[in-house]
Amino acid sequence: MGKERIYLDHNATAPLLAEAREAMLGALDLLGNPSSVHFEGRAARAVVEKARRQVARLVGGDAAGVVFTSGATEAVATVLTPNFKMGKADLRLGRLFVGAADHPSLLGGGRFDPQQVARLPVDRDGQLEPGMLDDALAAHDAKAGPAMVCLMLANNETGIVQPMGAVAQAVKRHGGILVVDIVQAAGRMVLDLEGLGADFLILSSHKIGGPKGAGALICASEILRPAPLIPGGGQEKGHRSGTENPPAIAGFGAAAECATERIEHTCDRTTELRDRLEAGMRQQCPDVIIHGAHAARLPNTSFFSVPGMRAETLQIAFDLEGIAVSAGSACSSGKVGPSHVLAAMGFDSEQGGVRASVGTTTTDADIDAFLAAFEKIIGKRAAVSEAADGGTAIP
Amino acid sequence: MGKERIYLDHNATAPLLAEAREAMLGALDLLGNPSSVHFEGRAARAVVEKARRQVARLVGGDAAGVVFTSGATEAVATVLTPNFKMGKADLRLGRLFVGAADHPSLLGGGRFDPQQVARLPVDRDGQLEPGMLDDALAAHDAKAGPAMVCLMLANNETGIVQPMGAVAQAVKRHGGILVVDIVQAAGRMVLDLEGLGADFLILSSHKIGGPKGAGALICASEILRPAPLIPGGGQEKGHRSGTENPPAIAGFGAAAECATERIEHTCDRTTELRDRLEAGMRQQCPDVIIHGAHAARLPNTSFFSVPGMRAETLQIAFDLEGIAVSAGSACSSGKVGPSHVLAAMGFDSEQGGVRASVGTTTTDADIDAFLAAFEKIIGKRAAVSEAADGGTAIP
Repeated sequence: MGKERIYLDHNATAPLLAEAREAMLGALDLLGNPSSVHFEGRAARAVVEKARRQVARLVGGDAAGVVFTSGATEAVATVLTPNFKMGKADLRLGRLFVGAADHPSLLGGGRFDPQQVARLPVDRDGQLEPGMLDDALAAHDAKAGPAMVCLMLANNETGIVQPMGAVAQAVKRHGGILVVDIVQAAGRMVLDLEGLGADFLILSSHKIGGPKGAGALICASEILRPAPLIPGGGQEKGHRSGTENPPAIAGFGAAAECATERIEHTCDRTTELRDRLEAGMRQQCPDVIIHGAHAARLPNTSFFSVPGMRAETLQIAFDLEGIAVSAGSACSSGKVGPSHVLAAMGFDSEQGGVRASVGTTTTDADIDAFLAAFEKIIGKRAAVSEAADGGTAIP
Repeated sequence: MGKERIYLDHNATAPLLAEAREAMLGALDLLGNPSSVHFEGRAARAVVEKARRQVARLVGGDAAGVVFTSGATEAVATVLTPNFKMGKADLRLGRLFVGAADHPSLLGGGRFDPQQVARLPVDRDGQLEPGMLDDALAAHDAKAGPAMVCLMLANNETGIVQPMGAVAQAVKRHGGILVVDIVQAAGRMVLDLEGLGADFLILSSHKIGGPKGAGALICASEILRPAPLIPGGGQEKGHRSGTENPPAIAGFGAAAECATERIEHTCDRTTELRDRLEAGMRQQCPDVIIHGAHAARLPNTSFFSVPGMRAETLQIAFDLEGIAVSAGSACSSGKVGPSHVLAAMGFDSEQGGVRASVGTTTTDADIDAFLAAFEKIIGKRAAVSEAADGGTAIP
């Protein structure tokens, strides 16, 4: 590739932290299966339990509530079910509300019947209106069973943060269950299980600098249990069967510990980098649209559209300049389609948006390089625009 | 722990192969998400696709049929569903037959209604009688939808191998779907997707010397598709959503390649070790019961009971002597209960059995140490027996 690549796609996957790498390597040659009762098994078990405490601490929760999964998507599929146990009694949920701009794994509704799933609209700033959620919950017939509300705290594409305090109040008022997907928020803003008012949290390892292949469903209480998605040997207190993955879990734990300890620095530094990136773009291209700029947002994410340039074209142009950004989220095996996120926010979903997301490994020089590339790419737009008989609108 | 530990529990989890470790490390610092379209994403994608070819080759299958999962238990949960697509049409299955001595993840029946799941008995040698399967399939009302038969090729506890050729013929004769769990068989006997006559295979990485956190559902055809268990971003051609795990998948691929290339040596060497272990036990303890000794078995597994000694007691005694063996499979978070495998075979399930399972890293000295420990432990039984007023039967 000739010159050094610049990676501004931390929301797709964050670089592996040195601490996570070390923890993984330390667990890689552990011989045992954590469910074996012999010495080797107990050594592997100890690694898993240490990580459970580290992950719990990231959200101020109790280790007993942390259920390790293979990733966040599995955790979502586990908790989005109408079938729960409340203690020993069956509890059947009647409805699922999801955010219209949220991740496909949430929109799909998991094991709910598609007819039970309702989408909550967002405004042009990508935010949900808690009053409207309140109305929707009031209109739900509680005789069908309690409602579940599942929302991303921060959107993966835009970084826009939902007003979760007001959401939680509405959900509690109507006796519902609140699931909060903190996949993108974790390590990028201060989090607190109790403060969020959530019954369940969804967390991913590789988005916080841990390895891929680990995630967690964090339960606020041990009383309320979703029907297991993956039954079998009964691991993870019966929540999730299958041999645990000590190296990935150890790396996840180490990354969670780093995220806990470094949160202030991360917020400060990523805000600085992102703000400089956006200021530069605005200067070079005054008509750039930065989505959600007026809303609460993650400090590390910028989601923008350049009028007259399709996001896919921009993304490819950046890639050729050695810069990794994304057009749409990295979820669909290379597929780049219209953005359901922009559609939900009332923008042109065909044109799409480009996401640049930074981390603490991002340097000032990376931002300079991004802006130099942006200027070059934007220059081509102007040239094309002029060549196409000055004044003709670009499709 | 003072002296060197000896690990004879390869069926719980096999030591990580050097080749798998190297492949993992090579992929650990890859920056991209395999679903991202930029350079970093494509580099991660290439790692996943190489492993797909390596895994396909292990079973003589086509890479296009390999669906990566987080492990075998997830693959089982994915395929054990009554809801399939046959091309674009819905296909609803009417019944699931599982082997009574098989793994809990199979016995649970996945997403089938418990009333749809039937258990096929085994004889005292742990084997299924294909004529009986034929009768059971003939008795199934095809109007309810085709039947699925899901069996372990080799049992995880006993190593006993099922007569899969005759099973496949019976399943085909009745228009059923055959799922074969090759988790324990892989790398320990020669395998061939077509020869097995299976529609789907289940495979685990960490049982063949790859890392934990990877497994596969291998589909003989792209026409027949189970309803996804984990929906979302649409990865793995829609079979399984969630960010792929390139390091674990790369390690899995490397382990599969080793398994393919070394199968003859592995069979010869493990047979030699296991036979010496069993001959030594029989010499020291003529009343030892070696389960399935007269049936087709994996070359690396010995599952035995010592009259008058509970399996759990034996396992703990071996552990204290520095030797890791298992009493029951390593699936239930340290729980050692009555053996459903022995119960299915008509033996005393309370007493249980001990599994010693070897691999090519096992040495002759390991077997010597096992036998020395066995002699010591058995000696205590004799002492207890004599102390308990010579001649009184041991409970």
